[in-house]
Amino acid sequence: MKLASLKHGRDGQLVVVSKDLSTYVSAADVAPTLQAALDTWADSEAKLKAIYDDLEAGKISGTAFDPVACDAPLPRAYHWVDGSAYVTHVELVRKARGADLPDSFWTDPLVYMGASDAFIGPRDDIEVQSEDWGIDMEAEVAVITDDVPAGTSVEKARDHIKLIGILNDVSLRNLIPGELAKQFGFYQSKPWTAFSPVFVTPDELGDAWDGTKVSLPLHVVLNGTTIGKPNAGVDMTFDFTQLINHVAKSRSLEAGTVIGSGTVSNKGSKEGSCCLAEVRCLETIADGKPTTPFMSFGDRVEIDMFDAQGQTIFGRIDQKVVQYTPE
Amino acid sequence: MKLASLKHGRDGQLVVVSKDLSTYVSAADVAPTLQAALDTWADSEAKLKAIYDDLEAGKISGTAFDPVACDAPLPRAYHWVDGSAYVTHVELVRKARGADLPDSFWTDPLVYMGASDAFIGPRDDIEVQSEDWGIDMEAEVAVITDDVPAGTSVEKARDHIKLIGILNDVSLRNLIPGELAKQFGFYQSKPWTAFSPVFVTPDELGDAWDGTKVSLPLHVVLNGTTIGKPNAGVDMTFDFTQLINHVAKSRSLEAGTVIGSGTVSNKGSKEGSCCLAEVRCLETIADGKPTTPFMSFGDRVEIDMFDAQGQTIFGRIDQKVVQYTPE
Repeated sequence: MKLASLKHGRDGQLVVVSKDLSTYVSAADVAPTLQAALDTWADSEAKLKAIYDDLEAGKISGTAFDPVACDAPLPRAYHWVDGSAYVTHVELVRKARGADLPDSFWTDPLVYMGASDAFIGPRDDIEVQSEDWGIDMEAEVAVITDDVPAGTSVEKARDHIKLIGILNDVSLRNLIPGELAKQFGFYQSKPWTAFSPVFVTPDELGDAWDGTKVSLPLHVVLNGTTIGKPNAGVDMTFDFTQLINHVAKSRSLEAGTVIGSGTVSNKGSKEGSCCLAEVRCLETIADGKPTTPFMSFGDRVEIDMFDAQGQTIFGRIDQKVVQYTPE
Repeated sequence: MKLASLKHGRDGQLVVVSKDLSTYVSAADVAPTLQAALDTWADSEAKLKAIYDDLEAGKISGTAFDPVACDAPLPRAYHWVDGSAYVTHVELVRKARGADLPDSFWTDPLVYMGASDAFIGPRDDIEVQSEDWGIDMEAEVAVITDDVPAGTSVEKARDHIKLIGILNDVSLRNLIPGELAKQFGFYQSKPWTAFSPVFVTPDELGDAWDGTKVSLPLHVVLNGTTIGKPNAGVDMTFDFTQLINHVAKSRSLEAGTVIGSGTVSNKGSKEGSCCLAEVRCLETIADGKPTTPFMSFGDRVEIDMFDAQGQTIFGRIDQKVVQYTPE
């Protein structure tokens, strides 16, 4: 089953989208918004699936689906936890600045709480005030959970993953060092997160989903040139069940919690990178300094993931960087 | 005007509460939930105020108000940013462990993104799995905003503060050092945040509200003994307008953003402390080691703030620490 939220008010309008992303039908009879569906997932899932099955079988006819009309699946969410699960990426960043990686980073998941009140859609502009802030993309895989009790085990965490998609965690690199030095995490440096047009139930991924991670390349294209297509199932030090277990250690997670993988990265980076920071780290390690600049106003970034037949699974994230001027 | 959310479903039921907190009336004709009211605040504020005025004038009769029936004003919120605005507290914590405070801490606000998907009510138990985690309270003042555009100035931030209350930011002290060492902020160490029974519009505070901070003592009582009543208007290095300006630097804040002051603390701590960590720091500085333990299962913490007549403004936070056992 594939679901999307069309732009409508603060929380979007939930629709069921055909497997090939060509058409959609309203899900209003089941739930007005994706959050409402997740709040009652045990009941709503089967009803939404029935609509999807009818749409796929041609029993009902859909309206043409346009990703431009999409908001984030959850235009505002109650909980957004972003991991840094590909530790090979963290190691590379540290190596570029001559720092060691603590051994604990391989056994203790690194996560931060992100801003979830203003997620943006797959085709929304990335609004930033200044290029001096070091504008970068981070291509990631994300899952959305139902209610997760405190103390949920890795084994039980698997059953709480209800939807899967991809995202762009926009990062302002030049604001990060100052924020990390304060130890309290990111704030100004992680302004916007954009999501794929649709999120899908795990069964849509077939063999590419083993219950814990997605084993497919994540494609990142900047101004028409592919900068990376690493496999999200490779070198994921902490899979989604481990991330859920980690963040639910001392408290419950409410339905609609969005969990990001962190920038997808494969050891050796032979298939390229999912963010410019990693490209620049590789350049620094090789040549002593980075040569690839961060993004400029007008730059376009595309993020996509394809099935075995080369069809897009989640639809394409396709965004332009634009200048924002405060009043 | 005073507002509360009675326990009801995931988002509570919005009610208007009398100034003396003795009675309430439903706000269902205006908005079912506080979030819904905040989403349309320009329209809903006057309507809610009309109900409040009628209740105060005796034109409508209310039902007996019981804080035990209260959930958090926003039982789940889209954005929770907690500051550490009383830098004198941060300085003390650092001094106790022999570390210097960077000069920038006096000019660059320290904030973290907190878990907002499961706020708890003023009389809810504090559920923790282990006393070994170092259970502590943090008494703070909080404000709730309407929509705040990116790049909002300190001056304009004032107009975006719509409601004021107090809170208990439950902290697991022994989990904090490991998390801060990773620089990504708090996660497991900040599980629950409890709020006062009512939140009030700024006019309810009279002269105690100057548009930027609350100048009244915040009382913290542990097992019947007052451990602190520092004045929240003293030594607040960054007021709420500065905190809003800081967090809105690179992005907008959506209506219903909750902003905490951080543990209230006055230089010299003559009026005591708002958390046990500060008590223990003072003991460490004086005697070389702390003697006050963190909280145990069964301990009770009360947090309250009073007007010039000695009446509670927001109602009392009154919680017991209980053990939580995962399934």
